[in-house]
Amino acid sequence: MDVRTREKAAVEVTTGPLPASRKVYKPGALHDGLRVPLREIAVHPSAGEPPVTVYDSSGPYTDPDVSIEIDKGLPRTREAWIKARGDVETYDGRAVAPADNGFVTGDRLTPEFPALRRPLRAKDGKAVTQIAYARAGIVTPEMEFVAIRENLGRAQAKHALARDGESFGAAVPDFVTPEFVRDEIARGRAIIPANINHPETEPMIIGRNFLTKINANIGNSAVTSSMAEEVEKMVWATRWGADTVMDLSTGRNIHNIREWIIRNSPVPIGTVPIYQALEKVNGTPEALTWEIYRDTLIEQAEQGVDYFTIHAGVRLHYIPLTVDRVTGIVSRGGSIMAKWCLAHHKESFLYEHFEEICDICRAYDVSFSLGDGLRPGSIADANDAAQFAELETLGELTKIAWAKDCQVMIEGPGHVPMHKIKENMDKQLEICGEAPFYTLGPLTTDIAPGYDHITSAIGAAMIGWFGTAMLCYVTPKEHLGLPDRDDVKTGVITYKIAAHASDLAKGHPAAKIRDDALSRARFEFRWEDQFNLSLDPETARDFHDETLPKEAHKVAHFCSMCGPKFCSMRISHEIRDAAQQKGKQEGMEKMAERYRQGGDLYMPADEVEAAGEGGA
Amino acid sequence: MDVRTREKAAVEVTTGPLPASRKVYKPGALHDGLRVPLREIAVHPSAGEPPVTVYDSSGPYTDPDVSIEIDKGLPRTREAWIKARGDVETYDGRAVAPADNGFVTGDRLTPEFPALRRPLRAKDGKAVTQIAYARAGIVTPEMEFVAIRENLGRAQAKHALARDGESFGAAVPDFVTPEFVRDEIARGRAIIPANINHPETEPMIIGRNFLTKINANIGNSAVTSSMAEEVEKMVWATRWGADTVMDLSTGRNIHNIREWIIRNSPVPIGTVPIYQALEKVNGTPEALTWEIYRDTLIEQAEQGVDYFTIHAGVRLHYIPLTVDRVTGIVSRGGSIMAKWCLAHHKESFLYEHFEEICDICRAYDVSFSLGDGLRPGSIADANDAAQFAELETLGELTKIAWAKDCQVMIEGPGHVPMHKIKENMDKQLEICGEAPFYTLGPLTTDIAPGYDHITSAIGAAMIGWFGTAMLCYVTPKEHLGLPDRDDVKTGVITYKIAAHASDLAKGHPAAKIRDDALSRARFEFRWEDQFNLSLDPETARDFHDETLPKEAHKVAHFCSMCGPKFCSMRISHEIRDAAQQKGKQEGMEKMAERYRQGGDLYMPADEVEAAGEGGA
Repeated sequence: MDVRTREKAAVEVTTGPLPASRKVYKPGALHDGLRVPLREIAVHPSAGEPPVTVYDSSGPYTDPDVSIEIDKGLPRTREAWIKARGDVETYDGRAVAPADNGFVTGDRLTPEFPALRRPLRAKDGKAVTQIAYARAGIVTPEMEFVAIRENLGRAQAKHALARDGESFGAAVPDFVTPEFVRDEIARGRAIIPANINHPETEPMIIGRNFLTKINANIGNSAVTSSMAEEVEKMVWATRWGADTVMDLSTGRNIHNIREWIIRNSPVPIGTVPIYQALEKVNGTPEALTWEIYRDTLIEQAEQGVDYFTIHAGVRLHYIPLTVDRVTGIVSRGGSIMAKWCLAHHKESFLYEHFEEICDICRAYDVSFSLGDGLRPGSIADANDAAQFAELETLGELTKIAWAKDCQVMIEGPGHVPMHKIKENMDKQLEICGEAPFYTLGPLTTDIAPGYDHITSAIGAAMIGWFGTAMLCYVTPKEHLGLPDRDDVKTGVITYKIAAHASDLAKGHPAAKIRDDALSRARFEFRWEDQFNLSLDPETARDFHDETLPKEAHKVAHFCSMCGPKFCSMRISHEIRDAAQQKGKQEGMEKMAERYRQGGDLYMPADEVEAAGEGGA
Repeated sequence: MDVRTREKAAVEVTTGPLPASRKVYKPGALHDGLRVPLREIAVHPSAGEPPVTVYDSSGPYTDPDVSIEIDKGLPRTREAWIKARGDVETYDGRAVAPADNGFVTGDRLTPEFPALRRPLRAKDGKAVTQIAYARAGIVTPEMEFVAIRENLGRAQAKHALARDGESFGAAVPDFVTPEFVRDEIARGRAIIPANINHPETEPMIIGRNFLTKINANIGNSAVTSSMAEEVEKMVWATRWGADTVMDLSTGRNIHNIREWIIRNSPVPIGTVPIYQALEKVNGTPEALTWEIYRDTLIEQAEQGVDYFTIHAGVRLHYIPLTVDRVTGIVSRGGSIMAKWCLAHHKESFLYEHFEEICDICRAYDVSFSLGDGLRPGSIADANDAAQFAELETLGELTKIAWAKDCQVMIEGPGHVPMHKIKENMDKQLEICGEAPFYTLGPLTTDIAPGYDHITSAIGAAMIGWFGTAMLCYVTPKEHLGLPDRDDVKTGVITYKIAAHASDLAKGHPAAKIRDDALSRARFEFRWEDQFNLSLDPETARDFHDETLPKEAHKVAHFCSMCGPKFCSMRISHEIRDAAQQKGKQEGMEKMAERYRQGGDLYMPADEVEAAGEGGA
């Protein structure tokens, strides 16, 4: 694979196209100058097939025609769209305080991003959110962009439109129109996370009637920390298919590292603001105040964070419900808020100030990701009173946020055995009025630390099928440590599998195109095509080479498992060839018909003869 | 981990117990001298908990008190039980022919196993099968052995008996009695693969009302070959949890390598006899004859193969149904038989001679694994006419085998999208009269070669939940190459996850014990216990050490993800401590009660006070 790495401000990121892949840009019809990125994977001419078009979350990093300069940031494509709406103003943003970077100084301070700008916000109380525009009947460029993006060239792929699946009440259309996108957003059934201060994003949509999305978590911690690593993790995660990235940093330099990430991110960035707020009070939950939290929301909104995880559903009177759990409260944000509530004998300030939080989110179009602070951390605690009590409150808050013209999604568990997964999905749809569900896994067993990408992929594929709109990845390091670059890739590929399996089962009209193309390549021994059409061409090729390294074998008409004599696929081709010679084919069908009548164990000799005449 | 390796005839195998684990042997009540192996995992004294008892498929290799001598083979424990039944005789077995080892000579010939014996067979037409005994009302030592083995010390674990799950009509008992085992076998709902010439096995049971089992495939091929590697792969696979092992060798030395494997295997060994038969005719399907195949069955039955995959359901008139498939026939055995049928214009000799095959199986108690030769090899071909036509024939053959007192299980797909998995399970139960289902995956998407252990674990967990009795593993090398030792481990651990997730969802009364013990360890920061209770302690520990290498951190009361200040579990403990101080607890509950009444967004000030009085 052609991977070039560039050094800018000591930041190396992975660039270059994936094998046999070409970035194409589709234009818009309603809006001039839209360039919607898709990836075309070419197949061998012998296939006589068009390239396979797939969703592409990787941004300009995989476009050889774009020169990447990390210290300048990505092109601010959405800026013109945002300003054209005439409802925003620039202003002098909040001044960065030492607390924002955990009081770190000197060499240990991550350098500021060089190209800082004055932030945008809504003019006097206006709602600059996609849901406000959708309700006003406006189809924004962002909406048309995602409509084109979701179709994956589906218009040309009529053969794939035969619908086959069980959607459990989802309304996935044959073809996504901008008007459909607008309507889904207006209803609150989908969101486009798109902070007006993050114009570098390529718009994407999260909703159960669209392709299932995945999120990758990155972020430094008290234990380890580096801006360059985190920026590359973001680029690396989107290269393999992450649709959004959450920066869960908890250590020092949070503000400056986040700035570098956002300026270079083509996907929406999510955060959990309480983590940074806690850093500002030296990690003492009791010391948190609404004012410090509010200041942190504005700080991050001005930088361009696209969605906030807010654990406003952890109410004081729910805390006793967690006392007898096997694993108590495992959400970091949830436990911080619970501690605060107990320490002050008070209702959560997130809950009490929720409408003010809505006002901030509306002024920048920061989407809500209502956190499940009481999610189960073990099979034993799944679907318990604490979890479902919080869900009721999240439903209540969803309606308040909608009333404030804010975009909302809901976070879900966690650890849930397979037989309790659907109950989670069904309750969420009912209680939260079909607001998009965004789940972590769920993990279907607790006994495999080191393999929780797998324990959770099982649950993720199922809940995605049942209706979850975005799946938060879990890496092999879950419960054990911080993911490195390889873990991030493993987590992303694993979750692309879960999301795609969900789309297939829901009957997404375009999902099967890629499976069929890869399977045809497999059956026709087009090894290179099989690698190139896979989610991870490098790994597929490396595994094949371990057994049959020679280039010659890439065109061999047998499998590396069996060798030439045994290959079932090869034999199967001979069968097809024999059967397909006309006449014989007819004969076989006549014979088959005759056989279907008599299903007895032993076949009369004369029928053997008859069959003989008809056969190959 | 204490792993000693022993050299015997240049064979190195992995031995030694798993971390914190002790092999215990439970006695029988009906039969003297039964020693049923289980593994006890000790936890830290601070937990004040008994060790966790888990199923142990690893045989004597993990017992430090047993000295392993590969060239002598394992103790022949079952020999006395078999002979005591008085219905078998020793005789001069079939002489080994050069064709049995693929005509290989000289240095390339794998040495014969040193301790060859005369084989056993049933006296004059007697049925020496577990199903014959079960129907005669006899509870064999094998049946009592599996009853004790399945209970996992369940008698002592009353707390786990609260049933929670959806079993889809399975009848998993609270406690497995020998009589229950007998009855399930008599009905054909379960099998104990136990060839009278493989007395080295520790009996295990396959049926939907028992723990979900997994199979690991090993075997050399034309491409690569070594006896020592295959024996170690078998030991390695069972160490991590493989309940049975299939030897899918297709290259040279098949006969001699298989002898070494069987003599040293504590688990049932399965094969696909057509592979060796084809080697005997130089890989030309058309040259196969019933006589050559029959001779191969006897050869393998005399060696002690416990179950045969037999593709007798691939009938001549089904072949046209595969012609328009995306991936044709992907089963090796299925494609070989299809080729033969077409070449001779004849019905399959496996189908026509099925009753004679039953007679052979009955004489040695070789269980049938009726092969799904027409299983789908791609999402596009799932649940098609060819697959279900063959299933009808497998149902017909099941009833014939049962009439002949033979044990039977049925093989299943393959590649199936999630929404079509349950249909497979339901049809199989109905058509095959609840004979145990044994599925490969199924893979839920085709687009991730290199990750098919994951694409298939999703389908495997689901179909296991729906009722599949044994899951055939898929390794990361599927479709690409032959699994090496690491791939075998990854495949086995992945499938242990799928099988356990199935047992949890079915509501298996003992399944949750291990999850709860591990989760308590996690919540109490007993890191060592968390590693030791996991499916792969080595990997869990290595991952943890990558972030926090110091031994001191193994007792640290914080997670390696967040560092000390942030740990939600630590905070959660403080919450529990606060809440559990009496009086305060009452106060909180009073308060919680008061809150439950009013669910308004803003709480009146006086209630804040009231809450205050009640809180911590």
